[in-house]
Amino acid sequence: MSRRHKRRHRHVGLRTRTKPGTSPGTLLVDPAAPKPVLRVMAYGPDRIVEREGISPEDAREYLGHWPVTWISVEGLGDATVIEELAEIFDIHRLALEDVVNVHQRAKVEQYDGLQFVVAQAASLDQDLHTEQVSFFLGADFVLSFHERSGEPAFELVRDRIRTSRARIREEKADYLLYSLLDAVVDGYFPVLEGYGERIETLEDEVIHKPDNEIIFRIREIRRNLLMLRRSTWPLREMLNSLLRDPIPHITDSTRVYLRDCYDHTVHVIDILEIYRELSSGLMEDYLSSINNQMNQVMKVLTIFAAIFIPLSFIASLYGMNFNTKRSPLNMPELDWYWGYPFVLLVMAATAGGLLWYFRRKGWLGGGAKTPRVDSRSTDAERREPTAPE
Amino acid sequence: MSRRHKRRHRHVGLRTRTKPGTSPGTLLVDPAAPKPVLRVMAYGPDRIVEREGISPEDAREYLGHWPVTWISVEGLGDATVIEELAEIFDIHRLALEDVVNVHQRAKVEQYDGLQFVVAQAASLDQDLHTEQVSFFLGADFVLSFHERSGEPAFELVRDRIRTSRARIREEKADYLLYSLLDAVVDGYFPVLEGYGERIETLEDEVIHKPDNEIIFRIREIRRNLLMLRRSTWPLREMLNSLLRDPIPHITDSTRVYLRDCYDHTVHVIDILEIYRELSSGLMEDYLSSINNQMNQVMKVLTIFAAIFIPLSFIASLYGMNFNTKRSPLNMPELDWYWGYPFVLLVMAATAGGLLWYFRRKGWLGGGAKTPRVDSRSTDAERREPTAPE
Amino acid sequence: MSRRHKRRHRHVGLRTRTKPGTSPGTLLVDPAAPKPVLRVMAYGPDRIVEREGISPEDAREYLGHWPVTWISVEGLGDATVIEELAEIFDIHRLALEDVVNVHQRAKVEQYDGLQFVVAQAASLDQDLHTEQVSFFLGADFVLSFHERSGEPAFELVRDRIRTSRARIREEKADYLLYSLLDAVVDGYFPVLEGYGERIETLEDEVIHKPDNEIIFRIREIRRNLLMLRRSTWPLREMLNSLLRDPIPHITDSTRVYLRDCYDHTVHVIDILEIYRELSSGLMEDYLSSINNQMNQVMKVLTIFAAIFIPLSFIASLYGMNFNTKRSPLNMPELDWYWGYPFVLLVMAATAGGLLWYFRRKGWLGGGAKTPRVDSRSTDAERREPTAPE
Amino acid sequence: MSRRHKRRHRHVGLRTRTKPGTSPGTLLVDPAAPKPVLRVMAYGPDRIVEREGISPEDAREYLGHWPVTWISVEGLGDATVIEELAEIFDIHRLALEDVVNVHQRAKVEQYDGLQFVVAQAASLDQDLHTEQVSFFLGADFVLSFHERSGEPAFELVRDRIRTSRARIREEKADYLLYSLLDAVVDGYFPVLEGYGERIETLEDEVIHKPDNEIIFRIREIRRNLLMLRRSTWPLREMLNSLLRDPIPHITDSTRVYLRDCYDHTVHVIDILEIYRELSSGLMEDYLSSINNQMNQVMKVLTIFAAIFIPLSFIASLYGMNFNTKRSPLNMPELDWYWGYPFVLLVMAATAGGLLWYFRRKGWLGGGAKTPRVDSRSTDAERREPTAPE
Amino acid sequence: MSRRHKRRHRHVGLRTRTKPGTSPGTLLVDPAAPKPVLRVMAYGPDRIVEREGISPEDAREYLGHWPVTWISVEGLGDATVIEELAEIFDIHRLALEDVVNVHQRAKVEQYDGLQFVVAQAASLDQDLHTEQVSFFLGADFVLSFHERSGEPAFELVRDRIRTSRARIREEKADYLLYSLLDAVVDGYFPVLEGYGERIETLEDEVIHKPDNEIIFRIREIRRNLLMLRRSTWPLREMLNSLLRDPIPHITDSTRVYLRDCYDHTVHVIDILEIYRELSSGLMEDYLSSINNQMNQVMKVLTIFAAIFIPLSFIASLYGMNFNTKRSPLNMPELDWYWGYPFVLLVMAATAGGLLWYFRRKGWLGGGAKTPRVDSRSTDAERREPTAPE
Repeated sequence: MSRRHKRRHRHVGLRTRTKPGTSPGTLLVDPAAPKPVLRVMAYGPDRIVEREGISPEDAREYLGHWPVTWISVEGLGDATVIEELAEIFDIHRLALEDVVNVHQRAKVEQYDGLQFVVAQAASLDQDLHTEQVSFFLGADFVLSFHERSGEPAFELVRDRIRTSRARIREEKADYLLYSLLDAVVDGYFPVLEGYGERIETLEDEVIHKPDNEIIFRIREIRRNLLMLRRSTWPLREMLNSLLRDPIPHITDSTRVYLRDCYDHTVHVIDILEIYRELSSGLMEDYLSSINNQMNQVMKVLTIFAAIFIPLSFIASLYGMNFNTKRSPLNMPELDWYWGYPFVLLVMAATAGGLLWYFRRKGWLGGGAKTPRVDSRSTDAERREPTAPE
Repeated sequence: MSRRHKRRHRHVGLRTRTKPGTSPGTLLVDPAAPKPVLRVMAYGPDRIVEREGISPEDAREYLGHWPVTWISVEGLGDATVIEELAEIFDIHRLALEDVVNVHQRAKVEQYDGLQFVVAQAASLDQDLHTEQVSFFLGADFVLSFHERSGEPAFELVRDRIRTSRARIREEKADYLLYSLLDAVVDGYFPVLEGYGERIETLEDEVIHKPDNEIIFRIREIRRNLLMLRRSTWPLREMLNSLLRDPIPHITDSTRVYLRDCYDHTVHVIDILEIYRELSSGLMEDYLSSINNQMNQVMKVLTIFAAIFIPLSFIASLYGMNFNTKRSPLNMPELDWYWGYPFVLLVMAATAGGLLWYFRRKGWLGGGAKTPRVDSRSTDAERREPTAPE
Repeated sequence: MSRRHKRRHRHVGLRTRTKPGTSPGTLLVDPAAPKPVLRVMAYGPDRIVEREGISPEDAREYLGHWPVTWISVEGLGDATVIEELAEIFDIHRLALEDVVNVHQRAKVEQYDGLQFVVAQAASLDQDLHTEQVSFFLGADFVLSFHERSGEPAFELVRDRIRTSRARIREEKADYLLYSLLDAVVDGYFPVLEGYGERIETLEDEVIHKPDNEIIFRIREIRRNLLMLRRSTWPLREMLNSLLRDPIPHITDSTRVYLRDCYDHTVHVIDILEIYRELSSGLMEDYLSSINNQMNQVMKVLTIFAAIFIPLSFIASLYGMNFNTKRSPLNMPELDWYWGYPFVLLVMAATAGGLLWYFRRKGWLGGGAKTPRVDSRSTDAERREPTAPE
Repeated sequence: MSRRHKRRHRHVGLRTRTKPGTSPGTLLVDPAAPKPVLRVMAYGPDRIVEREGISPEDAREYLGHWPVTWISVEGLGDATVIEELAEIFDIHRLALEDVVNVHQRAKVEQYDGLQFVVAQAASLDQDLHTEQVSFFLGADFVLSFHERSGEPAFELVRDRIRTSRARIREEKADYLLYSLLDAVVDGYFPVLEGYGERIETLEDEVIHKPDNEIIFRIREIRRNLLMLRRSTWPLREMLNSLLRDPIPHITDSTRVYLRDCYDHTVHVIDILEIYRELSSGLMEDYLSSINNQMNQVMKVLTIFAAIFIPLSFIASLYGMNFNTKRSPLNMPELDWYWGYPFVLLVMAATAGGLLWYFRRKGWLGGGAKTPRVDSRSTDAERREPTAPE
Repeated sequence: MSRRHKRRHRHVGLRTRTKPGTSPGTLLVDPAAPKPVLRVMAYGPDRIVEREGISPEDAREYLGHWPVTWISVEGLGDATVIEELAEIFDIHRLALEDVVNVHQRAKVEQYDGLQFVVAQAASLDQDLHTEQVSFFLGADFVLSFHERSGEPAFELVRDRIRTSRARIREEKADYLLYSLLDAVVDGYFPVLEGYGERIETLEDEVIHKPDNEIIFRIREIRRNLLMLRRSTWPLREMLNSLLRDPIPHITDSTRVYLRDCYDHTVHVIDILEIYRELSSGLMEDYLSSINNQMNQVMKVLTIFAAIFIPLSFIASLYGMNFNTKRSPLNMPELDWYWGYPFVLLVMAATAGGLLWYFRRKGWLGGGAKTPRVDSRSTDAERREPTAPE
């Protein structure tokens, strides 16, 4: 159970918090987190340089000499490196705390000269993973922090930068920030696709194989969609703020792209809300399905019991030991020539009558389903909505 | 299952997306989509010309020479044609991406000189189909893109244009845009009518023939109403924005018409929300209906069991093999002259008593339903609300 | 079924729509609607004239010669008459379309010189009826359109006008408009009263006579309350707009009255929302009631089965045909002197023990209900909330 | 039933309305209401006079001669007295209608020179009672109308006024109005306390004695909380309006007190919403409880049936009358020496095996509950949240 | 029961209220509350003094001589001490009432020269405890009131103050206020963690050991989350007001920290809402689980009954006492040589057939669960969302 606990608390960001009452800006580094690796990519329209595994001091040297410098820090497992960077880039302690204390809501904050942007990325294999990505945007640089290394969507952005004549090479640092945020937002689509498929699978199973275990899976999906919701709504707010607020370093031509990115976020949220509504219908379907199944079980029981109980009664009637010799009134049937066949006939008639009764009630399957098909086909015959005159 | 998957993802626009991290404005044309067919309709109050199947270059020639030129592109299956048009009309890459990457939310966006309008049209045969229609409004032209060819509602607009002296011939391009949007909005009414009928059919079946399969149909309706909701609410926002924002090319006299179109959208949304509420009551009704049915089954079982079990017990009592000869206390009834008839009488009395008991409890049908009719007729006798004095 | 379909679609205004793509302002008159009857009432503080069944041309003559002229058109079944009126009063085509295409949301629209006001009136006999009432307010006239003739509440307004020295005779046309709107709004109160009674009746029946048919009635009420909601919320918006917006022809002294009318609408909505909440609890109550009933059925079954099954077993035990002569171990009880009474005693003890067990579990009625009464009386003994010191 | 009807309609204010279409400002006095009794209390910092049972004309004489005059009218059963007062204080007809037609929403309305304030007071004995209290605030007087006489909370305010040197004696009329409103708002707290206790009682009973009758009591509570909600939300709006709007006669020092009163209203609403949520969980709990109980019943039935049915089968097997003499294959067990003991043993083994099976399934009570206690104690062992370092 | 009552009413603040109608600002001290203990901590960048258990008069002496003075009052059980302090610090009576009458909503109020801030702290051992903390912020002092002594989070703040060179020593009184509020807000995280674990435990038990008692625990959690919600939402509002409103004594550099504190509150609320949603799914899961269990019980019953009832019938058939000598038609099987084995065979075949039927229906466990695993693994095989090209 403890493993699951940890996972949950990680999701909502409870485990890695400092004690209440401690000084603000305390960096609480998770020792199990990967150690930070610095990569620099400095480029202009016609030249580019890339280096990996450098020290913070090395990174400083690119600043001011290139149109755009992108310093990315992958892994947050070493407070010293992060604090060195904070000093070089003059980062406020509270912003730094937010970088390390992952599971912040997406937000934009202005510290003089620097824009601090936080976003939550998501990916899905068996489980849902969320990763905080933090950006500092300066006049000519983007400094990005990632919880883990190797965000594949960011590799594609790097590839675009490496391509000479790519638009991104012509643009400023704000366009780089946009490209990275766009990669984060677009990363939600495959995650949603995954949940779409899972919901669909569950929608079938909930009817055809309802068992207790399915509750766990429905619950898992609902919880994860809740988590995604918690990541995406602030993302939308954050992008809206980037789009509308007078933020230095962000040019009007980039705002057009940010608006597109904002639209994608709205699309993500739309789908998410649809999936949330679909998944919240699953439990209802499950309950109906169980009840329906119980109904079937009850019918089988009732039919068996109702048919055989009277028959057994008749049989036990003639099992009574009344002394037929003492009185001609005492079960004379037992001595009839046709007694036994007659009783068998009575039994068969009783059973037949009951079967007919249950069939008429529709409990024996069959007729109940046919009319539905008709109703559907009449739907199909409805007049076309906009047939030309 | 894969067929259904595809359909669902198409609805929410997940399948046709580019990879996260790729460059914005990438056109991802669905190769299975129909190839684009261009039609031009250029008209003024007293002259009109129509051509079909032309090339983008041909279309360019009408611009500037006619009061209104309508270039419609039906089918989005060829990126080259679309990019040629983008060049001619000076369309921003992001707008172009939105045209091709269907399943955008309805929206208005201003690119200098051009108004970009996206809307989702809907139609219903067996399934719900949504189609994105995109418009670019210039000073004297409308450029429209349709996913598929042959929107019948648009043919009616063409017919109105062909009629000389029609109001639409006197008006500018903004009125044409209004007419097309109005056709899109009004196309929702027959769709809603279809769902109204389906809900009504289900409302009957849910009570009279509740089975598991009905859950699928309720779910289908609820999902489609969700999809419609996702199409119509942004439509309302978009029309409101067209109505209120200072958008060039849109005149005040057309705004009066757009207000009417906006009212229609509100009407659509009103009905949609009513249908959503009705459909969300269906599962509840279904569950109640199943439970009620189970109740009936249980009553039948209980009546059978409760009547025959005591009778069987009496019969088996007299089936015991106590030695009546050893002791006069051992089942002397077996030797009585009236023994058998007496036992039959006891059995009949037991059965009769139980039947009376169950009838009094109202389990045998009958009396429970009559009072309701009275209560209804008293409703009818209520005094008229506004009888004249 | 078709009759019900028609009724439903009428409610939400789907059946009478024009085809998507047709020209705006097309009048689609329902041929089954009653033919229009014109009535004129022209009055001032000290004189009054009334005429009925006149032509549109006749109506024109009153305009400008009386302080207030009220032309009312009852019935919308003839497009010619309505169009003639439109010409006389210079009514915009779109407003005219809204008059004829009933089931508009309540709204105020300004067309130069004319205020166009739409409201939905409601009445209840067996079914809920809604009727659209449209008003055009000019400087010295009110032109009203009614779907059907003979709104009784309007007759009361006429009576007030006929009374000399009535306040309404002193006031302008805006006060007449207010009086008619007030009559429309107050007409909702008896409708709500009717639903209050129906809900109360259902609240009893849902517990005491739960059957499938009750689902239909609950659903009917919920749907009608939904419809009423759709009528009343826009009514409130409309009145608020009349109250706050700078609308010509509406004087400040009339605004005080409109504020009162607005308060009434809010009262209507308050009650409506209470009834909606009460009615949405009905299905829940019904489900609980069915489940409770099933519980009772199950208890009866279980008690019968659990008591008689062991007894039957004992009886059938002694019905076995073991050869008592072969072995003294084979059912010696059968040959005992007190065998039969002993077995009867065992049976009685078994039955008694089980009865005691079920009584202790509270399944046999009785004790379970008494404590509740106590708990209620303790409620009554609570100290009075605001007893004087 | 009629008694309950009346009560309900009174609550929502439906019964005492005028007919739709009648003139605004019509006073519809309930003849069963108590006749009005006038009390005057005129006071300043150092003198005070009190009179009861006076005529409206008497009341007029105090005006203008005292710093504060409080005229209270208890009972609304006589239109003449009320109209006389209206004339003396120059009250608008619509305000007067609102005074008499109780069940208005709380509100503040300005009529020139006079502030009209309506509030709903609540009290609870067996049933919930609401009473409308209306106030007119002038420069140096408060005129209050009460549905019934003897609001105990108001007596306490009188006592405070009677105390010389009390703060209230130093203040103006607006402070008196505040004191009365504060008494009204604080009167909700004991009502809520009463509902808190009722909900708690029901929470126990719903689990331990679920029966149909409990549905009525849950419903009663939910309805009353709905009614309270309808009273309190407008109260909050009203107080907010008194607090923020530029209302003459209300001084800034009194506004500080009104803010406190507003805070109390928010507190009332907070508790109310908590109780509403708790009470809406009651039906769910009830349903779960019934289902759980049915589960228990089913288990008892199943255990009895499953154990005895096989035993009975074995017994009836050996009750068959096969002729053991004809063939040694025909039930030779019947002639065995150990036949009967052997069969008894088989039966005991069968019963034992089934009991073991049901115990292992946890249907026989016992072990299922123990682990929960452990889980709770582990909760207790969690580390203290804020232990000092 | 009374103990629980008290606890509940304490939570919502009902028990400690004054009577409706009493004078505002009346201090109603709970005599059982701990007596107040005063502690003073006066500090500047380079000096610090601490004293405990002093009198209000002693406290006065520090004011004005130190950069920051923090007077904390722990325990509210003595009105005299509190009123003495009120006089020294010139506190408004209404603010004082709010300090003593705990269970106020969090709020900021400005009294001239003093900022009054109320917050609710929470802690969790077995039960949830909330404590009101009130602050008065002056130019150079913070006066804090605590319901109980020894808030551990505040001890940590004291430790930080005691540390020379700590940032808090350099800052003004507003930073101290921030530090204390931050401690209050961060105190919610361990509480939420506790509820996270409880919900998780319940999520398991609800499926594996559903019994009535679990309803109480779910209800307890839901109520406590409601209480937390009531505490935290106003906290957010309060912090937002501190952050945005022009409040004297609060500097811009502290506002940056308050923004961080506000973010934490939003985080708390986010998690709270997730937990509320999760806990509201618990009852649904419970109901499904019970129904599923009942389904299992019913299947067992049905299988037993359906198999043995026909067998018993066959057995009782041959227990009938027809006279085989009178007629060769009367049960000739009884005299067959292979009669008994033949009947046993028929019985075995019947039982086997029924078992096969039930297995095919999936009622005997087994195959129903295997396909799910497959479906999951297909999920895993989905293509990685952002694989590099």
